Amino acid sequence: MIILLRNEADPKNVSALKERLAGWNVKVSSADVFGTEALKLEGDLDKVDFSLVKSFDCVSTITKTGDPFKFASRRNYPEKTVIEVGGVKIGDGSFNVIAGPCSVESDEQICGIAASVKESGATILRGGAFKPRTSPYAFQGLKARGIEMLSEAKKRTGMPVISEIVDISSLPYFEHVDIIQVGARNMQNFELLKELGHINKPVLLKRGPANTIEEFLLSAEYILSGGNRNVILCERGVRTFESMTRNTLDIAAIPILKKLSHLPVFADPSHACGRSDIVPAIAIACCAAGADGVMVEVHNDPVNAFSDGAQSITPAAFSEMMKKIRAVSKINETV
Amino acid sequence: MIILLRNEADPKNVSALKERLAGWNVKVSSADVFGTEALKLEGDLDKVDFSLVKSFDCVSTITKTGDPFKFASRRNYPEKTVIEVGGVKIGDGSFNVIAGPCSVESDEQICGIAASVKESGATILRGGAFKPRTSPYAFQGLKARGIEMLSEAKKRTGMPVISEIVDISSLPYFEHVDIIQVGARNMQNFELLKELGHINKPVLLKRGPANTIEEFLLSAEYILSGGNRNVILCERGVRTFESMTRNTLDIAAIPILKKLSHLPVFADPSHACGRSDIVPAIAIACCAAGADGVMVEVHNDPVNAFSDGAQSITPAAFSEMMKKIRAVSKINETV
Amino acid sequence: MIILLRNEADPKNVSALKERLAGWNVKVSSADVFGTEALKLEGDLDKVDFSLVKSFDCVSTITKTGDPFKFASRRNYPEKTVIEVGGVKIGDGSFNVIAGPCSVESDEQICGIAASVKESGATILRGGAFKPRTSPYAFQGLKARGIEMLSEAKKRTGMPVISEIVDISSLPYFEHVDIIQVGARNMQNFELLKELGHINKPVLLKRGPANTIEEFLLSAEYILSGGNRNVILCERGVRTFESMTRNTLDIAAIPILKKLSHLPVFADPSHACGRSDIVPAIAIACCAAGADGVMVEVHNDPVNAFSDGAQSITPAAFSEMMKKIRAVSKINETV
Amino acid sequence: MIILLRNEADPKNVSALKERLAGWNVKVSSADVFGTEALKLEGDLDKVDFSLVKSFDCVSTITKTGDPFKFASRRNYPEKTVIEVGGVKIGDGSFNVIAGPCSVESDEQICGIAASVKESGATILRGGAFKPRTSPYAFQGLKARGIEMLSEAKKRTGMPVISEIVDISSLPYFEHVDIIQVGARNMQNFELLKELGHINKPVLLKRGPANTIEEFLLSAEYILSGGNRNVILCERGVRTFESMTRNTLDIAAIPILKKLSHLPVFADPSHACGRSDIVPAIAIACCAAGADGVMVEVHNDPVNAFSDGAQSITPAAFSEMMKKIRAVSKINETV
Repeated sequence: MIILLRNEADPKNVSALKERLAGWNVKVSSADVFGTEALKLEGDLDKVDFSLVKSFDCVSTITKTGDPFKFASRRNYPEKTVIEVGGVKIGDGSFNVIAGPCSVESDEQICGIAASVKESGATILRGGAFKPRTSPYAFQGLKARGIEMLSEAKKRTGMPVISEIVDISSLPYFEHVDIIQVGARNMQNFELLKELGHINKPVLLKRGPANTIEEFLLSAEYILSGGNRNVILCERGVRTFESMTRNTLDIAAIPILKKLSHLPVFADPSHACGRSDIVPAIAIACCAAGADGVMVEVHNDPVNAFSDGAQSITPAAFSEMMKKIRAVSKINETV
Repeated sequence: MIILLRNEADPKNVSALKERLAGWNVKVSSADVFGTEALKLEGDLDKVDFSLVKSFDCVSTITKTGDPFKFASRRNYPEKTVIEVGGVKIGDGSFNVIAGPCSVESDEQICGIAASVKESGATILRGGAFKPRTSPYAFQGLKARGIEMLSEAKKRTGMPVISEIVDISSLPYFEHVDIIQVGARNMQNFELLKELGHINKPVLLKRGPANTIEEFLLSAEYILSGGNRNVILCERGVRTFESMTRNTLDIAAIPILKKLSHLPVFADPSHACGRSDIVPAIAIACCAAGADGVMVEVHNDPVNAFSDGAQSITPAAFSEMMKKIRAVSKINETV
Repeated sequence: MIILLRNEADPKNVSALKERLAGWNVKVSSADVFGTEALKLEGDLDKVDFSLVKSFDCVSTITKTGDPFKFASRRNYPEKTVIEVGGVKIGDGSFNVIAGPCSVESDEQICGIAASVKESGATILRGGAFKPRTSPYAFQGLKARGIEMLSEAKKRTGMPVISEIVDISSLPYFEHVDIIQVGARNMQNFELLKELGHINKPVLLKRGPANTIEEFLLSAEYILSGGNRNVILCERGVRTFESMTRNTLDIAAIPILKKLSHLPVFADPSHACGRSDIVPAIAIACCAAGADGVMVEVHNDPVNAFSDGAQSITPAAFSEMMKKIRAVSKINETV
Repeated sequence: MIILLRNEADPKNVSALKERLAGWNVKVSSADVFGTEALKLEGDLDKVDFSLVKSFDCVSTITKTGDPFKFASRRNYPEKTVIEVGGVKIGDGSFNVIAGPCSVESDEQICGIAASVKESGATILRGGAFKPRTSPYAFQGLKARGIEMLSEAKKRTGMPVISEIVDISSLPYFEHVDIIQVGARNMQNFELLKELGHINKPVLLKRGPANTIEEFLLSAEYILSGGNRNVILCERGVRTFESMTRNTLDIAAIPILKKLSHLPVFADPSHACGRSDIVPAIAIACCAAGADGVMVEVHNDPVNAFSDGAQSITPAAFSEMMKKIRAVSKINETV
């Protein structure tokens, strides 16, 4: 890391800065650049507070070398991470579609949808059991019972399953869940992330609606640095002023995340859009943009869904969408 | 339009509202709905200030019928608008690629790029001559001389051309320009829009980075209601907190605009992303999402471009991108 | 709740809607309004999924009566909530200043700052012990030991203290903490909020940077509906494209929250701005806008702060700020 | 300007960069910093495209010295700009209140409001005649006739007046208008700004809802660099996801603009909030934050206003607000 000082820097301020740097136990060297002083920092830079360094009047610019997210960085780990669950490979260049209802509602519902989406080409089944809801008065999920139903659907169809965790205390229920999902609202629930760093299951981490790509990768880093290297990144929209959609899917995040990181990158057009009519078009666009997969809410009877009915597509619409997805993903592989 | 009043509405406030409505010369009828009063408004509702109506304490909700953008509305005009310029059809279901440099720099530059992008499959040539720049100290374009060079490239290649207008006073220079572009910063320059409503040339209107889809369509309405029905809508990103891209392309705006309006819908991944490395991926995604076309900045020598070099792709990258674009647009037509 | 149907509604869609409504066990009545059908819903509307209802083609508008946040609503509970801790009254019309360091670092540090801010007029002492940090490699707080130091400062100065909780498992350490803070990143950590609804301590809840005022009040509702009625709301900025500040403090949220809710409203200019030079001006503005208090980071030696040094003001700057705060809050009381 | 290269920079890329820099006719010197190359640029740097330089792989960081906005910069011109119109001093440390209706509607209306706000302490009268409206079907202002009415009110009350310009062609009508306002939507209508740089009248420039503080100052620079040094900056809210207000007033922009520039800084709580009930609280907060003035929409009969009735306050509310404004501005001067 190199700190370039200002030309007209006050020597007292420079001394204060150097003293401060010394306190972090990093090696500081000095050099002259065109008559201005430059400082080089070496050692364990993790504890250095860069916002603070930047706030010194004498500091002009700070040049960091390397990514702040170490384990997530493609620069540090060029080889792409391939995750295998239940016979499905994620991140190997193939395109995976996670499909299923927002909430698990009954054995019939989840097993019916599972069979249907599998037939259309979905490779992983989703189903929510522990639901984080904006209002305390909204349906909060079937909880443990929902996970049991999801496991039943897994047994019957042979598909690996994914479900969302909202609190570490419910981890024991996830024994038969293949991928644990961390929702957008919990992207910076660092205590949860730390715990998930110590388990041995793949984690699909969604980007928070007010979080930058760098913050997203730093949240992934909480899991990776704990020892769990099986993280799937999932873009699901940032919050903007546009009210015709629930959020604004950041389509550019897909190729950027692929460049910055070796982790698989998914997108969730259902939550990003919040309206089923445009979900297929956006899912196909995410595939075309180079994602490793998408997660789509499918419900046999959206009108009677326990939650998120407005953004769930029918099995028929899903089947239509899959035709285009297959064609586009073939282009990605061959053209 | 129906106004539902509150249950516990203050009669004095209700009287004030009715008096106010009367002042706009609209017909007001009254009905009882579950013990609450409802008002129906008929007549010329254009002058009614809905924010004001909504600010009355006694008003619960306002139900508008019909779109505020009349000529742009697909509900009012279900048939899709097809625009023909120089033998090219826009909005007819085919996918058109507008390509060329940010700024016209010389005869050689624009003619060279034109020949190259044409060969790769571009159908329309872009080139800026009048440049709106954030800083008064930045290059402001070759102006009239740039338009001449663009016309020369048009003559040599036979491609129709598009260029940006920044002030109505320069309209005479656009005689040989086939499509006039209104940039994002001028999306609400209503005086300019009004003037363009009176001419006979297609206008490509870009969405402003802080504008909703409804405001975008209302800006198109300024042109359409003036008599010029040849408007192309172009999504080019909204402003968000993410700093890894210049703006955040609102991919969902593409299918939504197609639903709400009969006008052709384009996207501009170059200005949305601001970095050339991801432009091809995003252009392909826009095609997959159902756009009628994209506009891409291509420069033979991005490093020496007079402007926007960082977001311009090379003719070679453009040619690669076109292969995928062709394949994806074929899927849209056949699957 | 009243649902107004569209004029040209498809009868099959209307039937589907009515069937769906019936499924939620609410009483549905029908009436004619200007030739269009209107439905009235009565009963327990908490389970009704309004996004879903709105997604029916036949639905024109939905009119809700009453606030979705029931216990937080001033309409339902007009009397202002006054919270008393350690002899300090919050929300009674007086202006309270919470001050202290971002992180508790040592006994000397916290006790020194406590004495100093108390002398300048602060009424509550803050100090972070469990720190949520964007990067896993940043300082994570002194944890239990930090809380002990904070308690020591409380004992010596007699000031009530506030500290942030990041996980319910650490609740036992907060025995001597007077107010528990929930940070912006945990505003929608609903499991944490539910638990805090069952305790008997005041909670200061910060608004998330991507959350609306309504969502903020619904998060407060999680605590309130659990039985804990002592919630303090704290505005701390929303995320925007502006990069000269960390976030954009939503000053209008202060008078709006005061109107919508009876709960005390605070603001946190330190985290909103992220730079100490403008913190005093913004703190004074929050007071002028009608807040019940502000929370300000003060550090005796910002340059050597363990965290957030860039946004911490010195005791001297704090003392200056307090003079103006006192003068402005006096105006609020008298003019 | 100093460019720091990457440690592992590709020599070919470095050569390409140097060649590119040479093309801009700037002097380039080279130096070694800790084994890495640094380049210093001197000369006329205005034409250098920094986004392009930054896009070179070999470039690590760019250190600019000095502000991009030269004439607007306080660093370059430390002395505060004081503007005098019709006996009123703006920017001299006093607090000025611009008040009046959104639209001029009649002689009686504008003269009546003028007399009333003058009595309460307003020093400048506002009144719109040329109105930029989102919809082409909304009231577009009384135009020339409105300006005449405003001039009449000026004659009767002796107050200087301000009105918005939307197109340079209407400049002749502004002969008796003391301050020309450029609205938020035209902040980057550079052709208009250039023209206003050549006249001799003060210009109040509003910040665009999607524009950064730096872009705002660069727009001011268009006017200043043309020769017109009498520019007043006006913060009026940025666009966010919050829908309870029209925009989110960036209160922090006030002290930041005061630091960065010597120009007077105003705020417009009426347009930022879009609802009259909170305008007084926010206006007072802007005063407390250090603004040189505010602009507030006042209407004798908001309910019958031709435009913006929802955000206009009554003369009575204005008078109440002025009492607090006076008290707070006195604190700013004395404490």
